[in-house]
Amino acid sequence: MIIRSLLTEDNTFNNTEDIIQWIKQRNKDIEICVEKIPLKSMDKWIFDEDGCLRHKSGKFYSIKGIDVNTDYEKIVHWQQPIISQPEVGFLGILTKEFDGVLYFLMQAKIEPGNINGVQISPTLQATKSNYNRVHDGKSPNYLEYFVNAKPQEIILDQLQSEQGARFLRKRNRNIIIKVNENVKLLPDFKWMTLGQIKTLMNYDNMVNMDTRTVLSGLKISDFVSQLDNTEKMSCFGRDLLLSSLTDHSIFRTAKHLSWLTGLKSKYDLIVEPFPINKMKDWKISEYEISRPDEKYFKVIGVNVKIANREVTTWCQPLLQPMQQGLCAYIIKKINGVYHFLVQAKMECGNFDVLELAPTVQCLTGNVYASELKPLFVDYVLNAKPNQIIHDTLQSEEGGRFYKEQNRNLIIEADDNFSLDLPPRYTWMTLRQIYKFLRFNNYLNIQSRSLLSILNYM
Amino acid sequence: MIIRSLLTEDNTFNNTEDIIQWIKQRNKDIEICVEKIPLKSMDKWIFDEDGCLRHKSGKFYSIKGIDVNTDYEKIVHWQQPIISQPEVGFLGILTKEFDGVLYFLMQAKIEPGNINGVQISPTLQATKSNYNRVHDGKSPNYLEYFVNAKPQEIILDQLQSEQGARFLRKRNRNIIIKVNENVKLLPDFKWMTLGQIKTLMNYDNMVNMDTRTVLSGLKISDFVSQLDNTEKMSCFGRDLLLSSLTDHSIFRTAKHLSWLTGLKSKYDLIVEPFPINKMKDWKISEYEISRPDEKYFKVIGVNVKIANREVTTWCQPLLQPMQQGLCAYIIKKINGVYHFLVQAKMECGNFDVLELAPTVQCLTGNVYASELKPLFVDYVLNAKPNQIIHDTLQSEEGGRFYKEQNRNLIIEADDNFSLDLPPRYTWMTLRQIYKFLRFNNYLNIQSRSLLSILNYM
Repeated sequence: MIIRSLLTEDNTFNNTEDIIQWIKQRNKDIEICVEKIPLKSMDKWIFDEDGCLRHKSGKFYSIKGIDVNTDYEKIVHWQQPIISQPEVGFLGILTKEFDGVLYFLMQAKIEPGNINGVQISPTLQATKSNYNRVHDGKSPNYLEYFVNAKPQEIILDQLQSEQGARFLRKRNRNIIIKVNENVKLLPDFKWMTLGQIKTLMNYDNMVNMDTRTVLSGLKISDFVSQLDNTEKMSCFGRDLLLSSLTDHSIFRTAKHLSWLTGLKSKYDLIVEPFPINKMKDWKISEYEISRPDEKYFKVIGVNVKIANREVTTWCQPLLQPMQQGLCAYIIKKINGVYHFLVQAKMECGNFDVLELAPTVQCLTGNVYASELKPLFVDYVLNAKPNQIIHDTLQSEEGGRFYKEQNRNLIIEADDNFSLDLPPRYTWMTLRQIYKFLRFNNYLNIQSRSLLSILNYM
Repeated sequence: MIIRSLLTEDNTFNNTEDIIQWIKQRNKDIEICVEKIPLKSMDKWIFDEDGCLRHKSGKFYSIKGIDVNTDYEKIVHWQQPIISQPEVGFLGILTKEFDGVLYFLMQAKIEPGNINGVQISPTLQATKSNYNRVHDGKSPNYLEYFVNAKPQEIILDQLQSEQGARFLRKRNRNIIIKVNENVKLLPDFKWMTLGQIKTLMNYDNMVNMDTRTVLSGLKISDFVSQLDNTEKMSCFGRDLLLSSLTDHSIFRTAKHLSWLTGLKSKYDLIVEPFPINKMKDWKISEYEISRPDEKYFKVIGVNVKIANREVTTWCQPLLQPMQQGLCAYIIKKINGVYHFLVQAKMECGNFDVLELAPTVQCLTGNVYASELKPLFVDYVLNAKPNQIIHDTLQSEEGGRFYKEQNRNLIIEADDNFSLDLPPRYTWMTLRQIYKFLRFNNYLNIQSRSLLSILNYM
């Protein structure tokens, strides 16, 4: 039933074009004004004595400073601001079967940092603070379905990480539930098939990061019970299915575990609190916390005004990237089975030192000219058109990042591509990737974004 | 070959009684004097301004203070000293095949905190500092085999946690390698079969904690390729084998993952640095850091003198427990398959909030009379003799803990034992437990100690 949802765009309620028009219309209907204001003018936000920015309530998130020591790469010591949000958030998608096809209840949601206003979002994005308010009538829409979900209604339920370079050990509960009861359709919500959502991911910045991470956990082979399902698959989809079913990988999972254990043991990552106002590479000015060399990102303060049926206004800090990012998986058929070239990558906010990242994950622009230029960048950027399986711009979380988008690429290696591996890289089948994915904190969010994009139709 | 090693005590080199005599003899030959001295008199150790105890070199470990906030149980806020040792240590066992049987190279190792001096230890216990000295000739015995191990020589390689109540996020690399080359047998080392080591675990405080954690990762069913191997197994061993092979568990692993995701999302664990000398429940006196109510543990300083071929002397702090501990698994045949009653337990030093702990893991003594008395304690302590599968005292790491031993119990539930589960408890087959065990930080060290004890003969 998930497989039927995955392999169809036939939607009883809305065809794909309707959905695209709906998002466009929502963007027209909702007026959003995001104005950069002095950091100290943000209502309800305060600078503490260390230059840390936090909400007066003590809730939501804060911008803290950290000092990082590691022996991972050329840069062994630095300081930076980072988003601290210790609560585990809920990212939930509610599903329901209609006529044998599973539909996903998706929301047209506006976030102040979104490059284009409204994006397709999960049914629910809620923090634990929201969760605890479930009984006072101000709780988020549909929260009660998730809070009261019975074990047999749960399709997927994983704790997964956010961007390790920007968030300090942040995790969300990624959950998909399937209910039988009637579900009231609220104005900002529509039912979509999984196939439709996959198709919408071919558009730039249409499907938000939260949707992509939740859907990344769905392993296709868990839902293919009959081979005749594969008739609707593309050749590529069938190849992916094989990669997620087969035991024929060039390395055993035990070897991957040993490789990762060795790397996690080898590299130190020591992260300690450090006052932002004492960092020599970062300056706090009236409008931003930024680096004079304009690298990485800056922290800005915004006043947000959203006018729809009613006017809502608030202030919050956002992280604005200084460069676009690039996330690319190189995949290659080895002995007839697609393998993904996976990298074990350290980021300072990682929960567990290293996570499994795409083959290439880096900033663009001046990075390419520097000694920090990562492996495989040239290969990915010089891929021939017939090697490019996917190429879009995808947004990061617009509730925390200001107009951040990363190029998401999936590249098929040519016949001459070497199977030899640098130390932090390995080849995994989809089946092996999903073995790691179901446990916490193995696949990073950039990996998961690319996995979610894989299209079987 | 591992299975043959597991199911035999026939050792070409040393029979089991010889090994016991050898350990006794080592204890006689080696004179160890551990003298409690004033904390400030410990050579090369200093108190810093916060009351933190650390080595002058900045290496080894330190005793730090932490402040803990959680909503896990009745006690929601406390402060305590804790051992900080951010480096990943090596716990390694070297193995080699002789006449088709795998032998494990074990060490008779003395530690100042050992209740009985010498215990059977892995081939190698080394820190990263040791590792980095590999080329200066002062490296630990046999280190080079582990540092240079080729992937095909690695039998097991896992990153596993230490005691979460005593160590702040400490982990070790648990590794077993198999070599073909000749291995020089040094005086403190002997070759043992896995079956012998299992038998020696039936003695109190004979096999040290480090050995137990490394061996816990060996999953019996991975090494049973032919059913005729099972002839040498006990009935109970065959039942355990079934539990580690079967798909017939009452809950699916996806349900366990969702259960654990829910619990990890539900409970907050916020651990922050806090000066020991400002804690109201802990006092620093001349000889110890302890609680006036004499609960939990105290930090003491010792001067150690070991006289064998030469005299070695040094000072170090140790943690001395104020009560013995109890670790017990309740197991039960459900639909003909043994299931283990697993608990998700929070400890403040845990790497990831909750780890999978034995059914009962607690301090003994006055705890039983308090409101903190854990579930299932009475059941375990009142088990009839025919329900007791294992009952020994096992030591904690004598390099950090002073004469600490915990009672390790495995109890078979009677027919009337309810299958109903309190929220933080679940039933798992051995196969499911090992699925979690091979990934980092799922099974806590008390669980792993009990798993290592399971005897198939």
